[in-house]
Amino acid sequence: MSLAESAGALGKTKKHGLSPHMSLRPGVLSERYCLPFVSSVASNSWFRQKQFEVSVNPHGVIEATDFDHMARALQLARRGLYTTDPNPRVGAVVVKDGRVIGEGFHVRAGEPHAEVLALRQAGEAARGATVYVTLEPCNHHGRTPPCVDALIAAGVARVVAAMRDPNPLAADGFARLDAAGIATASGVLENEARALNPGFVKRMRDGLPWLRVKLAMSLDGRTAMANGESQWITGEAARGDVQRLRARSSAVMTGIGTLLADDPSLNVRLAAETLDIEGVVRQPLRVVLDTRLQTPPTARLLTLPGTTLVMTAERDGACRARLETAGAEVCVMPEVEGRLDLHAVMCELARRGLNEIHVEAGPLLSGALLAAGLVDELVIYMAPHLMGSEARGLLHLPGLERMTDRVPLKIADLRAVGDDWRITAVPM
Amino acid sequence: MSLAESAGALGKTKKHGLSPHMSLRPGVLSERYCLPFVSSVASNSWFRQKQFEVSVNPHGVIEATDFDHMARALQLARRGLYTTDPNPRVGAVVVKDGRVIGEGFHVRAGEPHAEVLALRQAGEAARGATVYVTLEPCNHHGRTPPCVDALIAAGVARVVAAMRDPNPLAADGFARLDAAGIATASGVLENEARALNPGFVKRMRDGLPWLRVKLAMSLDGRTAMANGESQWITGEAARGDVQRLRARSSAVMTGIGTLLADDPSLNVRLAAETLDIEGVVRQPLRVVLDTRLQTPPTARLLTLPGTTLVMTAERDGACRARLETAGAEVCVMPEVEGRLDLHAVMCELARRGLNEIHVEAGPLLSGALLAAGLVDELVIYMAPHLMGSEARGLLHLPGLERMTDRVPLKIADLRAVGDDWRITAVPM
Repeated sequence: MSLAESAGALGKTKKHGLSPHMSLRPGVLSERYCLPFVSSVASNSWFRQKQFEVSVNPHGVIEATDFDHMARALQLARRGLYTTDPNPRVGAVVVKDGRVIGEGFHVRAGEPHAEVLALRQAGEAARGATVYVTLEPCNHHGRTPPCVDALIAAGVARVVAAMRDPNPLAADGFARLDAAGIATASGVLENEARALNPGFVKRMRDGLPWLRVKLAMSLDGRTAMANGESQWITGEAARGDVQRLRARSSAVMTGIGTLLADDPSLNVRLAAETLDIEGVVRQPLRVVLDTRLQTPPTARLLTLPGTTLVMTAERDGACRARLETAGAEVCVMPEVEGRLDLHAVMCELARRGLNEIHVEAGPLLSGALLAAGLVDELVIYMAPHLMGSEARGLLHLPGLERMTDRVPLKIADLRAVGDDWRITAVPM
Repeated sequence: MSLAESAGALGKTKKHGLSPHMSLRPGVLSERYCLPFVSSVASNSWFRQKQFEVSVNPHGVIEATDFDHMARALQLARRGLYTTDPNPRVGAVVVKDGRVIGEGFHVRAGEPHAEVLALRQAGEAARGATVYVTLEPCNHHGRTPPCVDALIAAGVARVVAAMRDPNPLAADGFARLDAAGIATASGVLENEARALNPGFVKRMRDGLPWLRVKLAMSLDGRTAMANGESQWITGEAARGDVQRLRARSSAVMTGIGTLLADDPSLNVRLAAETLDIEGVVRQPLRVVLDTRLQTPPTARLLTLPGTTLVMTAERDGACRARLETAGAEVCVMPEVEGRLDLHAVMCELARRGLNEIHVEAGPLLSGALLAAGLVDELVIYMAPHLMGSEARGLLHLPGLERMTDRVPLKIADLRAVGDDWRITAVPM
């Protein structure tokens, strides 16, 4: 019995019937369709979302096989993990008579969208087929023509999306398809699809980027010796894992304290083959939060390929000119109580089209971002040693006096990475 | 092909041959015979021991089925986890013609040993049988007669032990069996057998008890708020787990700081049914390290069933008399630089027949025990929240200045316990 039939047997809908919505228990789906990459991009609200709806238009219905094909489309979408930024990662599969006749995924901004590539592969056979796509097809002219036009032109019978498009500009793709008599359905593996594009979804929904704070600590929660020495707390495997987190991000951010202490590179040092991508490796924007504009023009990150953005509250023109001559872009932001207004900083980064921000900073900035409620995920690498009671703490979080003041987290994932352990925690 | 035959094929021994020793790659055994309880009692040196030897006497040989029967004997031995102290946990299986004809495990000191119970169950059929026992049978008159006498009297043909007896008084069991013409072999699942009795083995070998330090911390490595508040860092499941660690221990130890701050009970509050044992629940000795004899005669732990031992460097008779009147036993120990000599304390506890010491103390005593090299295992419950940078640290470990001063650990086990995570770490 298909899922639609079983739902029908429960009296919620009928196969090819008129019920506009049907609900499926998420447990049924998540057990069968648990994808391996979900936990690593666990995001705050979505993982607390216990119930989701599968919606179908009057001509549509959800079949069990829809989940199989969507799982494949998600696999394809994931191949764009390191390249699509600032666009979302999207995959598509064209199926006719139960057979896959076209597959595609979005590779890079400016290149064709996933649906278009999949339709091209299917060719004439796409007529009457079902198209699975991990994000509602767009209905706007961006760098490429609207995907709905391509779907209508191809004469497909049905389009199933994992999730509706959170981009207000791109929305109404389904409305156009409905009007053209094409059956539509959405909500198939929606949590998994959202988890693949946490930054894009949050930016579209809230006008803010999605923030991951990476930390490395000893088993006793220390991040540096009293003298500041901290290289290396974790082993090679963990540091390689961090490189992958950088590579998938729109930007890598640090604070002026870390910049002055460590003179970090903040770049991606993995080869294209290691990331299993074609073409050159994209270097995420490097962002330095530097209230007083203390970044030295000789800073290592200014000498590397890619762009460095220094965000400051300092309006001194000479300082700024020196940094700009050294290759930095400088952006003046408002300050609050003598420090950069972190909320304003994040709004500005979202305005610039940045989805995922990967933060590698000291306890001060990491703690301030957390206290400001801007952090979506903490990724903590825990090394198997003790650094002692004089070493520096994990996060500067002052003012917690009672047990009731504690900051609750949800551990979304915990796994071994070499000799270290990676803890993915989500603020509640 | 049996293991013996495969070893023979490698030219190391011959079946029924004369080679007194044969080596088996531990990987082969551990993959097939990995027992679920091994990791939870991981101990320092044994888990670093990568190679072990299976020794057989001239009349013996190891078969693959020996490992199956020994695994069963270990399961039986584990049933004495909460009751045999100060004796080791031991299980035995009698096998004849491939069929199990007797099983037994040691329940309590003063009651029959495992071999004797298994032989009783086997009865006359034991003649010519093989006996599997997790510890070399004893050859001395303690509270019960020597087990080797029972084995010889039963006319068994062969005795296989997981490990030789580390007790110098009990040793030479095999020599007596050899002299009686009974085939012997040892080293079958030896690591697993040692892990079941870490305290007994260490006490016999080193004259020191085996020390487990239990800690509870937030994700940022904090154990109490600045004001000392710490109840409860972890959830109910973790606290239940700690009760089981207490229940298997010979003694539960704390320091005077924790006693004065929390007035703890340090008792086992689990029912016999919960522990799956018959009879009353054994209350481990409670040990308070109290250099200046500040334990108040009104301390809660003095009012509970069981014995409390206060170890002090204070020789004042009046103080001592007050505590003794309140039910405590007071033991005067030497001091070093104004604090109890921890090594002397441990020697004294071993002398008193204590195997496993479970420590629930503050950062000061826990840190001092670790720094003194007396800790065999850290069990850290990590709760999913942040307590902030003003909260108290995990362990008082001063004087670590450089990264090279770090205390390396091996993570032997890491698992979820309710909403918390339990990390079992072994000092290297």
